Amino acid sequence: MTDLSGRDLPEGFTAAGVACGIKASGNLDLALLVADRRCAAAGTFTQNRVAAAPVQWCRGLVPSDRIRAVVVNAGNANAATGAEGLADARRMAQRVADRLLCEPEQVLVASTGVIGRRLPMDRIEAGIAAAFPLLDHSVSAVENASRAILTTDTRPKVVGRRLDFGDDGQASILGIAKGAAMIGPNMATMLAFLLTDARLSPGLLQGILTSAVDDSFNCISVEGHTSTNDTVLLLSRQDGPYLSGEALKVFSQAVAEVCRELAQAIVDDAEGATHAIEILVSGCRDRDEAKAIASTVANSPLVKTAIHGADPNWGRIVSAAGYAGVPFDEAELSLSLNGITLYQAGTPVPFDVEQASQSLRQNRRVSLHLQLTRGEASLRFWTADLTAEYVRLNADYTT
Amino acid sequence: MTDLSGRDLPEGFTAAGVACGIKASGNLDLALLVADRRCAAAGTFTQNRVAAAPVQWCRGLVPSDRIRAVVVNAGNANAATGAEGLADARRMAQRVADRLLCEPEQVLVASTGVIGRRLPMDRIEAGIAAAFPLLDHSVSAVENASRAILTTDTRPKVVGRRLDFGDDGQASILGIAKGAAMIGPNMATMLAFLLTDARLSPGLLQGILTSAVDDSFNCISVEGHTSTNDTVLLLSRQDGPYLSGEALKVFSQAVAEVCRELAQAIVDDAEGATHAIEILVSGCRDRDEAKAIASTVANSPLVKTAIHGADPNWGRIVSAAGYAGVPFDEAELSLSLNGITLYQAGTPVPFDVEQASQSLRQNRRVSLHLQLTRGEASLRFWTADLTAEYVRLNADYTT
Repeated sequence: MTDLSGRDLPEGFTAAGVACGIKASGNLDLALLVADRRCAAAGTFTQNRVAAAPVQWCRGLVPSDRIRAVVVNAGNANAATGAEGLADARRMAQRVADRLLCEPEQVLVASTGVIGRRLPMDRIEAGIAAAFPLLDHSVSAVENASRAILTTDTRPKVVGRRLDFGDDGQASILGIAKGAAMIGPNMATMLAFLLTDARLSPGLLQGILTSAVDDSFNCISVEGHTSTNDTVLLLSRQDGPYLSGEALKVFSQAVAEVCRELAQAIVDDAEGATHAIEILVSGCRDRDEAKAIASTVANSPLVKTAIHGADPNWGRIVSAAGYAGVPFDEAELSLSLNGITLYQAGTPVPFDVEQASQSLRQNRRVSLHLQLTRGEASLRFWTADLTAEYVRLNADYTT
Repeated sequence: MTDLSGRDLPEGFTAAGVACGIKASGNLDLALLVADRRCAAAGTFTQNRVAAAPVQWCRGLVPSDRIRAVVVNAGNANAATGAEGLADARRMAQRVADRLLCEPEQVLVASTGVIGRRLPMDRIEAGIAAAFPLLDHSVSAVENASRAILTTDTRPKVVGRRLDFGDDGQASILGIAKGAAMIGPNMATMLAFLLTDARLSPGLLQGILTSAVDDSFNCISVEGHTSTNDTVLLLSRQDGPYLSGEALKVFSQAVAEVCRELAQAIVDDAEGATHAIEILVSGCRDRDEAKAIASTVANSPLVKTAIHGADPNWGRIVSAAGYAGVPFDEAELSLSLNGITLYQAGTPVPFDVEQASQSLRQNRRVSLHLQLTRGEASLRFWTADLTAEYVRLNADYTT
């Protein structure tokens, strides 16, 4: 399994990205991903009670064995838009289906952007019409599609893998994602779309995706606000023999890696961030304990601002762990930051504050390790720091 | 029941505040509250697993019927300091007890400030020695004590009530508090100390305090980080007849009011804040539902930054309610902001955006009302907005 230097689409898929005027900036804002034949499709979605119209549309359609396309717009979330919003999401699917001579239920839809405004359907429909002639298998088509799904992201997120199954042939996976804020840990995830020419059944595909999402997109946060639109889709082109045995393991692992790399790319590009923070929590009784501690530390503004200020203020980290709801004793907890032990079995350890601070100033990547002595479970979680720039970006978004 | 224009100590209590060199600024940093005889005492404390030494000390002592004094320092939290820290907290009590010719277990201790550093015990002991000759019943003594417990607060918080029980005589309550950050909703509360010359038994006093804290200090947050040191103490001087009947009701209500006013004063003085936000959640099945929604909205950085930016971005508020873990349907939810309806039964309501934005620009106080149709329970919660100034203040606190 090797990285693609290029970001090629798997066999049978084409992509396009166009600007149809949803974003005021005039940037690309509508992406189309199309398969030349039916695909199995799996999906995971936001657990927010206020779920956007496209999420409601997709939830009823996957897992599926007959998906043909995904259409995505950025700049408008089509969320909290009531029955009219759901009709708009369906109409997006219908317009794509008209071109593909299939049913609207074979087209998945995703949206991201401002909540609570009707989609400008005339622009969306013009965008879909404009995208079809541009559909292409090339690297630049992937580039355009990956840019068209962005909102406040500063760069596209694309991860590819070529898989070699030995005697069982080859396949590839391509994933694109977006996310820069409204990234919270109780979600399915932000927008991410994975395509593969490896053939799997819908049920198997769903199991592999759910597991991969659980360790990747569900283990990141920017500010902990769960979006109304989080969507991850995985399409598997139904051609050739079904994957099985060792090839299936290789494929599952590759999906997990692509998801993790995309999730980390989202954190790396978090709004206003100056540090990407990996939090490893080990020695817990179970994964839920580890996740409760990791996500509480990750979402503490006091931890995030300390790291932004290159301040090894371990008291904030330890006290955040203390209110995570896990009934540990102080003496069960140790903490290191970028490999420097700050707190050991409930007691502060003398350390070179200037060296620790310098390590934070000089490295964009920060690693925190909270080690407990309660059991064997561990978990990794990724987040970003909190900066004045994040506040500025979010103090004036709609108006 | 009328507000005290002055902030007089209840009968039999004296106070003092001194600067003993714990704060680098040279500001007042040690407060002493002393009763002339035994008091009943009640307390509520942080639920953080990493509880500071003074919290550990006090937890074992209240409810009590023989407390004589409270000693408080600011500038150092004496938290995450292990067995040595607990010995230091005990020594603070011992030094006060030596002067009062009582046992150390009759002295309550509280600390606030940086986590993880040993207390400078020589300065603390010199401060206690310096405070005793200054103990006084005057308004300026209260002023000094209320200033000595502050950290990044910009002003002291003092609330008083004079109670008239008719034929049953009179009494008074005086409360002081501090808090500006590390204010989170799963706490007992930040530091607050209430004194009264009304006589109640320790058990009754504890019940009244717990109930008052539940609707006040446990319903505020700044950034949602639960402190290691949160402490509320209520001392009742044991002299004269016990309160009963109608007088007891008047007293309970007055304690609730004093706690609520102090809690609101903490939010009003939150670090960097430009808005104080009251969140009313009504129409829930029970109080827990209402609190889950209120605290999730209150702790969303996206909600806080929108209000800071005078941006009536109701989608952020509605979507925060959506991930609070309460299984409501979108159509059950309505929202108004400063009396302007933005969202009604799951559907956006057209409104004058400029008017709503102006209302946010012109008022430091903001009211949000999230109305559901699930039941009769409601709850009020108070928080502050999130500003670049908050980030600046917290990006460089210890170093």
